Amino acid sequence: MKKTVEQLVEITGGRLIGDGNVVIRDVASLEEAGPGEITFILDKAKLKLLPSIKAGAIIVPEGDYQPGAGNLIATRNPQIAFAKAMDVFRPALLPGPGIHPKAEVSARASVGEGVSIQAYAVVEKGATIGPRTVVYPGVYIGQDARIGADCIIYSGVAIREGCIIGDRVIVHCNTVIGSDGFGYAWDNDLNGYRKLPQRGIVRIDDDCELGACVTVDRAAIGETVIGSGSKIDNLVQVAHNVKIGEHAIIVAQVGIAGSVRVGDRVQIGGQVGIVGHIDIGDGAMIGAQSGISGPVPSKAIYSGTPAIPHHDWLKASVIFAKLPELKKKINELEKRLAEIEGKKG
Amino acid sequence: MKKTVEQLVEITGGRLIGDGNVVIRDVASLEEAGPGEITFILDKAKLKLLPSIKAGAIIVPEGDYQPGAGNLIATRNPQIAFAKAMDVFRPALLPGPGIHPKAEVSARASVGEGVSIQAYAVVEKGATIGPRTVVYPGVYIGQDARIGADCIIYSGVAIREGCIIGDRVIVHCNTVIGSDGFGYAWDNDLNGYRKLPQRGIVRIDDDCELGACVTVDRAAIGETVIGSGSKIDNLVQVAHNVKIGEHAIIVAQVGIAGSVRVGDRVQIGGQVGIVGHIDIGDGAMIGAQSGISGPVPSKAIYSGTPAIPHHDWLKASVIFAKLPELKKKINELEKRLAEIEGKKG
Amino acid sequence: MKKTVEQLVEITGGRLIGDGNVVIRDVASLEEAGPGEITFILDKAKLKLLPSIKAGAIIVPEGDYQPGAGNLIATRNPQIAFAKAMDVFRPALLPGPGIHPKAEVSARASVGEGVSIQAYAVVEKGATIGPRTVVYPGVYIGQDARIGADCIIYSGVAIREGCIIGDRVIVHCNTVIGSDGFGYAWDNDLNGYRKLPQRGIVRIDDDCELGACVTVDRAAIGETVIGSGSKIDNLVQVAHNVKIGEHAIIVAQVGIAGSVRVGDRVQIGGQVGIVGHIDIGDGAMIGAQSGISGPVPSKAIYSGTPAIPHHDWLKASVIFAKLPELKKKINELEKRLAEIEGKKG
Repeated sequence: MKKTVEQLVEITGGRLIGDGNVVIRDVASLEEAGPGEITFILDKAKLKLLPSIKAGAIIVPEGDYQPGAGNLIATRNPQIAFAKAMDVFRPALLPGPGIHPKAEVSARASVGEGVSIQAYAVVEKGATIGPRTVVYPGVYIGQDARIGADCIIYSGVAIREGCIIGDRVIVHCNTVIGSDGFGYAWDNDLNGYRKLPQRGIVRIDDDCELGACVTVDRAAIGETVIGSGSKIDNLVQVAHNVKIGEHAIIVAQVGIAGSVRVGDRVQIGGQVGIVGHIDIGDGAMIGAQSGISGPVPSKAIYSGTPAIPHHDWLKASVIFAKLPELKKKINELEKRLAEIEGKKG
Repeated sequence: MKKTVEQLVEITGGRLIGDGNVVIRDVASLEEAGPGEITFILDKAKLKLLPSIKAGAIIVPEGDYQPGAGNLIATRNPQIAFAKAMDVFRPALLPGPGIHPKAEVSARASVGEGVSIQAYAVVEKGATIGPRTVVYPGVYIGQDARIGADCIIYSGVAIREGCIIGDRVIVHCNTVIGSDGFGYAWDNDLNGYRKLPQRGIVRIDDDCELGACVTVDRAAIGETVIGSGSKIDNLVQVAHNVKIGEHAIIVAQVGIAGSVRVGDRVQIGGQVGIVGHIDIGDGAMIGAQSGISGPVPSKAIYSGTPAIPHHDWLKASVIFAKLPELKKKINELEKRLAEIEGKKG
Repeated sequence: MKKTVEQLVEITGGRLIGDGNVVIRDVASLEEAGPGEITFILDKAKLKLLPSIKAGAIIVPEGDYQPGAGNLIATRNPQIAFAKAMDVFRPALLPGPGIHPKAEVSARASVGEGVSIQAYAVVEKGATIGPRTVVYPGVYIGQDARIGADCIIYSGVAIREGCIIGDRVIVHCNTVIGSDGFGYAWDNDLNGYRKLPQRGIVRIDDDCELGACVTVDRAAIGETVIGSGSKIDNLVQVAHNVKIGEHAIIVAQVGIAGSVRVGDRVQIGGQVGIVGHIDIGDGAMIGAQSGISGPVPSKAIYSGTPAIPHHDWLKASVIFAKLPELKKKINELEKRLAEIEGKKG
């Protein structure tokens, strides 16, 4: 694949400073890019490195550039421009369409045009797979599950019976969608816990992406929902009947307990835990490792366990580290006070 | 499936208030239930909603009900009564018995009556599968592993060599039972870590349920044990030689380090971490995200990192949030004290 | 398998005290070892149990032993000596060489001598598998992936396209290597997040071991690296472009965010979270559940969230539990001070 800088300006939608005729053959990182490669700078502080960068072209944040600083493509969003360049030079490596002879696809499943189903995948009766969706080896798609168009389902994923996946959804290896929610009640007659049947489904809307080894439990009744455009990182747990809004960002190893409602555009840092049956308001942000034990207002920024407004948590955390000092000071004050009291006695 | 309210009264073991002849065809949530559906109320505070509920029948906690509030089934445990109604209207969707021609079952494995083994499952030599157990696609059952009767092993589960699973055990997708424990010793001769062989097994007793993507490591020597009736949520880590008692409840993403003993009926909240080689006493409860670095007495309730009695932790946490205030007050006291000391000097 | 104590002395490299002619047939734990079994004592405090131990031979830490205390094998490192005895009596149970007829190995893959590829494993075109490596059922090895010699890849593992695994690497069930890194940028044109393509790889060097359900994301560009001899426990998350040094020990459920550099011989306790783009210096140790939000110096020991030096954290944690007491004392001091001020007014 070859593109001139001029062609890349057109693809990325940027503004050219420098020589548009230079030929580019690949993308590379800032440190490693050579003359035939394109790279990018996101952070304006790094622009001072420009003279030492050997890249054939550099995508830079919009600004006032002088000729001679290299072949620059200035744009409002260098990450997105670079993503477009990546798509040109390093397109995704996906298997071609067709059902592998070693896949097990029920005669009563419905498979759209251009679908790719790889070896040892299982598609049960009543399941639907939309056009151009790719199903990697060893995937399990349960009875009556519905998967939309242009999805990528990587190896080892399980999508259990009845679950619904929208269009352009990506699910990474070994993720589990639709496992039973965690519900039991102590039953004296059994002298043990009785399983509360989990007969709802999971619904994942368009344009979501789920990382590897994510678990999303099916609802007891009704639906566990992940709203369109939301992105979920590896090893996240989403319990039964959770409703996640649109365009949420949930970082690795977060755990969300049952029936929580996560609003639109919420951002949740890694390893956060959220207790059941509460609301996280639209646009809220939650710091990594926080423990959320009550509702979080819209657009609030919370941290800590139990979580409090982030700014307060930062201030309290600084003092936490100084508790031994503080305690010493209190003891000293007490001594000085006792001395005064003694003199007055 | 159709049942009259009277028939459901018999199935659930409740007491009828209202019309026993109404026909019910499905279960539904409180919000969504219509005339042909049965729902339930767990929380007495919600009984005031009764007049507005459209359900054909409502399971309610035992109490003093007047006719006219709908068709009620009063019972000591509405969750269990509703679970029985769920089993009637929405039975589990399990594959029928038989070994799929695309499963790979060793001629030297022993498979009980009525077993279902689905496509691409592997059962190694010497393994035993009890009557009526269901093995979903892509499951791996290692050499000499023993699985009891009436189990459900969902897709992608691995049960490694020699591990023992009791009766009526449910294991959700992609869970791993019997992976090697995490044990190494630095070896100067190798100038690196030497692996300490892990040659014990995992034993999971009757009526346990393990969520999705759970990992239970085999013992170094001897057994890692999960006692009968215990329930383990998604993404939990159980290290080598851990012994979990009966009827324990372990919520998602908990990590239990090596050789811990968890007593009977212990309840562990989500994302808790437990350091190795300690005892958690029978009936203890541990708050979500706690870090347990020492033994926990029977029936104690602990929280925090390091964990302390839950009540103390709650009180300390409230003050943590006010540390900046507290520090200010101390500084102010110091100033006032210095003033008095100055006047006296 | 039978060995005399004398033969075991030779195998383990220890020093004999007692009868070298006794025959040993198996290993056992300290509590359970009988006359035909060998066991070990690591902790010198347990040497006082020697008279009551029934084992045929006991590996003990080097010291001054009198005859009559049993058949002892004294050595500087009892764990390693015992590991060598384990390898004799309980060798790993691995399948023999050969490609199973129900494996799907591309004609354009390269498979070394003595390789074992089990049923329903998939090896894509361009992939390389080194001599004597064992690939268990249901493993997925993507296009152009390269796996070294003498590796063990357990069932359900995914090694995605282009990733590189060294020699003698062990990967436990359902671990995912090379899933896409978690990278998005908000795109106003899409009114949603745009996926930033992740086109780098994962490189895992010689002698590493990864637990079950571990996720290691491929780099955006370049490599995510796990250095030789490093050991990673179950359910750990390693994000894109992380570089882990040699001989690191990373305990279960740790999460390491993007572009972190973890030095050589670093030890990270369970459930630790590390924020992106920072350095953990060589030989640093991080306490379980810590939240690392800034760089950690070489050989430092850190704990807490946000993490501080471990010793300071311990002291502050003790006072945290006593915050209610401290607050009471401050209020009392204030009262006493006000009284004095009043008298002076």
